[in-house]
Amino acid sequence: MSNAPLITLTTDFGEGSPYVAAMKGVILSINPAVRIIDVTHAIPPQDVRRGAIVLDEVTPLYPPGTLHIAVVDPGVGTSRQIVYAEIGDHRYLGPDNGLFSRLAARLKPTKIRAITEERLFRRPVAPTFHGRDIMAPVAAHLTLGVDPDSLGPPVAALVALEWPGARKVANRIEGQVTAVDSFGNLVTNISREMLAGVATDETVGVLCDEHETRGNLQAYAEQPPMTLIALIGSNDFLEIAIVDDSAAIMLGVGVGAPVHVQW
Amino acid sequence: MSNAPLITLTTDFGEGSPYVAAMKGVILSINPAVRIIDVTHAIPPQDVRRGAIVLDEVTPLYPPGTLHIAVVDPGVGTSRQIVYAEIGDHRYLGPDNGLFSRLAARLKPTKIRAITEERLFRRPVAPTFHGRDIMAPVAAHLTLGVDPDSLGPPVAALVALEWPGARKVANRIEGQVTAVDSFGNLVTNISREMLAGVATDETVGVLCDEHETRGNLQAYAEQPPMTLIALIGSNDFLEIAIVDDSAAIMLGVGVGAPVHVQW
Amino acid sequence: MSNAPLITLTTDFGEGSPYVAAMKGVILSINPAVRIIDVTHAIPPQDVRRGAIVLDEVTPLYPPGTLHIAVVDPGVGTSRQIVYAEIGDHRYLGPDNGLFSRLAARLKPTKIRAITEERLFRRPVAPTFHGRDIMAPVAAHLTLGVDPDSLGPPVAALVALEWPGARKVANRIEGQVTAVDSFGNLVTNISREMLAGVATDETVGVLCDEHETRGNLQAYAEQPPMTLIALIGSNDFLEIAIVDDSAAIMLGVGVGAPVHVQW
Repeated sequence: MSNAPLITLTTDFGEGSPYVAAMKGVILSINPAVRIIDVTHAIPPQDVRRGAIVLDEVTPLYPPGTLHIAVVDPGVGTSRQIVYAEIGDHRYLGPDNGLFSRLAARLKPTKIRAITEERLFRRPVAPTFHGRDIMAPVAAHLTLGVDPDSLGPPVAALVALEWPGARKVANRIEGQVTAVDSFGNLVTNISREMLAGVATDETVGVLCDEHETRGNLQAYAEQPPMTLIALIGSNDFLEIAIVDDSAAIMLGVGVGAPVHVQW
Repeated sequence: MSNAPLITLTTDFGEGSPYVAAMKGVILSINPAVRIIDVTHAIPPQDVRRGAIVLDEVTPLYPPGTLHIAVVDPGVGTSRQIVYAEIGDHRYLGPDNGLFSRLAARLKPTKIRAITEERLFRRPVAPTFHGRDIMAPVAAHLTLGVDPDSLGPPVAALVALEWPGARKVANRIEGQVTAVDSFGNLVTNISREMLAGVATDETVGVLCDEHETRGNLQAYAEQPPMTLIALIGSNDFLEIAIVDDSAAIMLGVGVGAPVHVQW
Repeated sequence: MSNAPLITLTTDFGEGSPYVAAMKGVILSINPAVRIIDVTHAIPPQDVRRGAIVLDEVTPLYPPGTLHIAVVDPGVGTSRQIVYAEIGDHRYLGPDNGLFSRLAARLKPTKIRAITEERLFRRPVAPTFHGRDIMAPVAAHLTLGVDPDSLGPPVAALVALEWPGARKVANRIEGQVTAVDSFGNLVTNISREMLAGVATDETVGVLCDEHETRGNLQAYAEQPPMTLIALIGSNDFLEIAIVDDSAAIMLGVGVGAPVHVQW
């Protein structure tokens, strides 16, 4: 069993969507030995950027060789390509719309193929559900040993997205909230590296929208309940949190809100 | 591993319900080799019709021989029967309340048995949780080779539900919305077959409630964002959608809303 | 495959949380043969008591030897201990904050160890995500045969929580609502044992907040839709329900509401 091929799924179909179960049925009908793990189906509908962040943060934790299918695909049925890509030690399959661009910016892809070999597709292909009719069966065939080079023509580079970066100016770092987790913590694009050399004590202020906290902590529970705090989160980016409550709800703040660190 | 028995679960318990985990524990305690796949636990509470549609659309995608447990069971603890049915190449276990009636209308069941053999049940049987105490253990025993004929007496026919059908009258097809997916797309009961011969260009109007669109597209992204469109969905039924947004929310329309195609 | 080690996960991360997928990736990277089952990720954020109830009701249904990881951890990154405990025939791993105290009150733990052996951790350990960096890798190593005694020093007793008990006074039992399930049924702390000897007919009244029903039924569907009823639920505690609807919403009642049985 330790050699059973592993496929993960990341989609915006919603938790409990029968569309996810349809993809799993197609995969298992072609290769019943595959193990399927759900990364998440709670990507906000058509939010390619959120999908790209989750793929970048989570998929490298899986065993080398894992095949990751990602379906956040507002252009389904149009001329956007479906691609297979090898990035780091991992394999990816999904629409070429920027979903893999965070990964590809860190780790140069070693192989990219367009998926055009219709022999591997489920027929007929519904123009609105390539996840079930193209990605699921192609992935299953890959786990059976189909050569990636036979999937279609090589592609020179993946579609890239512009990522709003945090920037350091004089005595200040200017960034943004990039995600809200299920506890309401506000994850930013200000990295541990950018904060290297910046003090963590009360001489430093962290502003999120018009709300301010001072200092930079280690853990959520270091301050009393309801305190606004800043800390480096588990993904190595600055987070804004409220102890034992939801910062997103209490501050009324979401993705895109400005976050400044100043000293 | 490719020969490990496969069980799927379809319930209205809610995603993340500990009731689902209870059923899985009972199954794995009897046969630890079973692989369990969640079809969905997000069937609206006690919505037998929605369960029947999902079972009909999704379960045939799984490998032949898969055992599908379905628990949408408003009559739990009353005299409604629990049944085992072989339909197509698949096996089903659940309350006989119409859950399997969409499947059985397409593919005549080849075997139906009432589940009465208490020797296979978990004891004591809670009158409110037959999923855990009857269906889960019986399913696990079936994967170990128990003969379906030993489960209980044969049943002549499954309970059938009336399904409101779309109907073709003169220059018009009259149907209804039957489901809303997680993108807010409105799935109807107007099938691809009914639309055969109907033009797909702007001479055809599709009305949903009082909202109208003209023509019939292939993919969601063929029109600009916020456009109301109609297209044949991945389950071969007409869908009403709004590009990059939720038709259900934008039109304020749900299951049962009238949909007319006229030319 | 029937001998593949089994790990379950119970967290408050939310269904579809990428944090859960991160933990699974870490486990499978260390031992790809592990089978992982989700008990639930829908514990309300930081609700240790709800986690303790679910662990107590669900995990004993799994095969003996199953390793259950639980992460409901408001004190992550502070001095609270992470513990390994053997309780009944099962193994548990999680913060020592009362999560295992319902189980331990029923079944005396036979082994408790603090987790201090950093050699088994993922490095660096994020102070905000011990689930990924401590519990997941330690659990995976345990399934590979690491001796629990090598994890860290013995612990005399697990942290205990006070549980508000129901009490019997003269012709009355006074209890509380302890949980609301996904159907809106109100689960109480009045056990089947406490009700032994109490009549189940109309001479007995059950009051929830100011709403009253008389008698004690077997199944939800014994009365007409919209009827307020009381019955012994599948976990052997008294439940208040409304037939075919949500008692929680219709009565406007939640966890902590008083429930009285009087005769």
